[in-house]
Amino acid sequence: MAGPNVAIVGASGAVGQELLAIIEERGFEHGELRLLASARSAGTGVDFAGKRLEIGELGEHAFDGIDIALFCASGDVARAWAPKAVAAGAVVIDNSSAYRMAPDVPLIVPEVNADALDRVRGKACIIANPNCSTIIAITPLWPIHKANPIRRLIVTTYQAASGAGAAAMRELVDSTHSYLHNKDYTPTVLPHPYAFNLFSHNSAIDPENGYNEEEMKVIRETWKIFGDPTMRISATCVRVPVLRAHSEALVFECERPIPPEEVRSLLERAPGVRIVDRVEEGYFPMPRDASGQDDILAGRIRKDLSDPSGRTITMFVCGDQLLKGAALNAVQIAELVVTQASGIPYHKGTKTQSNLAPSLSERP
Amino acid sequence: MAGPNVAIVGASGAVGQELLAIIEERGFEHGELRLLASARSAGTGVDFAGKRLEIGELGEHAFDGIDIALFCASGDVARAWAPKAVAAGAVVIDNSSAYRMAPDVPLIVPEVNADALDRVRGKACIIANPNCSTIIAITPLWPIHKANPIRRLIVTTYQAASGAGAAAMRELVDSTHSYLHNKDYTPTVLPHPYAFNLFSHNSAIDPENGYNEEEMKVIRETWKIFGDPTMRISATCVRVPVLRAHSEALVFECERPIPPEEVRSLLERAPGVRIVDRVEEGYFPMPRDASGQDDILAGRIRKDLSDPSGRTITMFVCGDQLLKGAALNAVQIAELVVTQASGIPYHKGTKTQSNLAPSLSERP
Repeated sequence: MAGPNVAIVGASGAVGQELLAIIEERGFEHGELRLLASARSAGTGVDFAGKRLEIGELGEHAFDGIDIALFCASGDVARAWAPKAVAAGAVVIDNSSAYRMAPDVPLIVPEVNADALDRVRGKACIIANPNCSTIIAITPLWPIHKANPIRRLIVTTYQAASGAGAAAMRELVDSTHSYLHNKDYTPTVLPHPYAFNLFSHNSAIDPENGYNEEEMKVIRETWKIFGDPTMRISATCVRVPVLRAHSEALVFECERPIPPEEVRSLLERAPGVRIVDRVEEGYFPMPRDASGQDDILAGRIRKDLSDPSGRTITMFVCGDQLLKGAALNAVQIAELVVTQASGIPYHKGTKTQSNLAPSLSERP
Repeated sequence: MAGPNVAIVGASGAVGQELLAIIEERGFEHGELRLLASARSAGTGVDFAGKRLEIGELGEHAFDGIDIALFCASGDVARAWAPKAVAAGAVVIDNSSAYRMAPDVPLIVPEVNADALDRVRGKACIIANPNCSTIIAITPLWPIHKANPIRRLIVTTYQAASGAGAAAMRELVDSTHSYLHNKDYTPTVLPHPYAFNLFSHNSAIDPENGYNEEEMKVIRETWKIFGDPTMRISATCVRVPVLRAHSEALVFECERPIPPEEVRSLLERAPGVRIVDRVEEGYFPMPRDASGQDDILAGRIRKDLSDPSGRTITMFVCGDQLLKGAALNAVQIAELVVTQASGIPYHKGTKTQSNLAPSLSERP
């Protein structure tokens, strides 16, 4: 088989660009590769595997013959076009928040809940890619939760510009350049000056509880992916002047006491996670090291001193927002979809996939 | 009275420079103003109130005739010279960590525990200025703690370059400039690349519990200043690419349920605190707004969703590390010392001082 025909909606954006790079790097086998965008971006070109691919316009027959449609566009674009792609017979993997909380839409982190794809096997459907902060927090938390259920979680983020798109990354660079050269800069993408500054995540705030949308996504998506809405979760989401990797301080309380050594041992075996916890050298996860890496880096693993019961652990994680936080997770989902269709594990090269193999091998 | 004779040790550093600016701006009345440094910096000059002041060398008679000695130098300099200044009859206000935890040394945030100065009244002694992250967290927490005791506190920091001194601020600027111009930069002040990066606070780590010194300072100093070592505290301290204001996410559990409106109302009346919590506009405390400001900015005040009991609040604060986090707090302590000596509240111009007036008026 030549592999599925793949469409990418929003290929010229920050996530779309990473998606193309990952498809090439991982050798994701595909038939036709069709790039699509709304009229505004259609007609421009994008480089892929040494060739120039033209971006076509989203339109009536845009998804004809497509097996997998990767959406890296806004929620509005997803709402308008994902149902059309499904009607044309495609499996949609959507990076926006539009469908994440829909009860019949699987919300997937392959290391966590690949089995949630079972109920859509072989069907044209929408599969949602979670929020970046959610993925980066829960990929390392899952193996701990499986061993000793997490009952309470406090997430405090240090989020990179990339979460607001390529234009926000440019704004961080340009506004910092202006600051250093003593020039005025008026922000046009983000609502606040970004150079050497940080600010509360710029999503709408629920006037009832004071939490912003990003924080509520972390809470609700974790509930859905872990399949446990009784977990008590709080989040504070903050944008920091970093380009493309998110950092998060995670304080989590387990059902039973859990020593830091046990957390370390669980994470050593965890797919998609790399421990960076070199106490003697003072070397821990940093955005600069996480950028361009598939794995979530985890460190500063220690007992939380505010809980004498020994049930609470504090740790610090970093993950590339554009890779595991978005494009890589989407391609991993696509690989699972291909696996389901073929019955053969698709991509064997990574720790992630080989660790997923046991649950996949149950399939015919 | 012409005011006390004042010595400043380390006047050419980041905190020393702010100290001089604050003395001038607040009109802190003084007699002689003597600048001192170790041999390395002695002989250079510093601008003050339109004049050029020469920095003298720390030596045998350096503190003769000095009433108040403000130390903005290392712990080693404080350990070597503060006892000599006291022997010469001075009150030392020390910005280093050298004496903070000594049982007989008052550790003072004027808005919190000015009364801890009572036992050293009129004596040559050492008074310690707390760690910047501690001051910025506890100035807004104190009025809440007084109304409804805080039993548990989780601090997560976003700390500016200034906490590591003027050289670290330059390194942030220079390394960012190099990054933007595609040039190599080898860090010489901080242990990790700083441009568009963040990293765990670069202080030594206790191999027993995994906490770094900065985190343990926040914990132990809060216990001492609040006079309550039973408070359960945890901290994660992180250096972010911001120049001079620290931000902190504070999650605190009170003895009894406390609605966010009550916290807001307590902070509206709190000295040294300004509420910035404009939910409709998405406008909250930011380092850029806190820089150069005396007040700690507090916002994102909301119920912590991970504690259904309603006893836990989450909020976000920013404060200028060089001002309230260091130099301003030191000058406020000096003002209290002068007040004690004269019996008359020294500085009446600020909200801080007028709010402190009731406790001061008990004195003869």
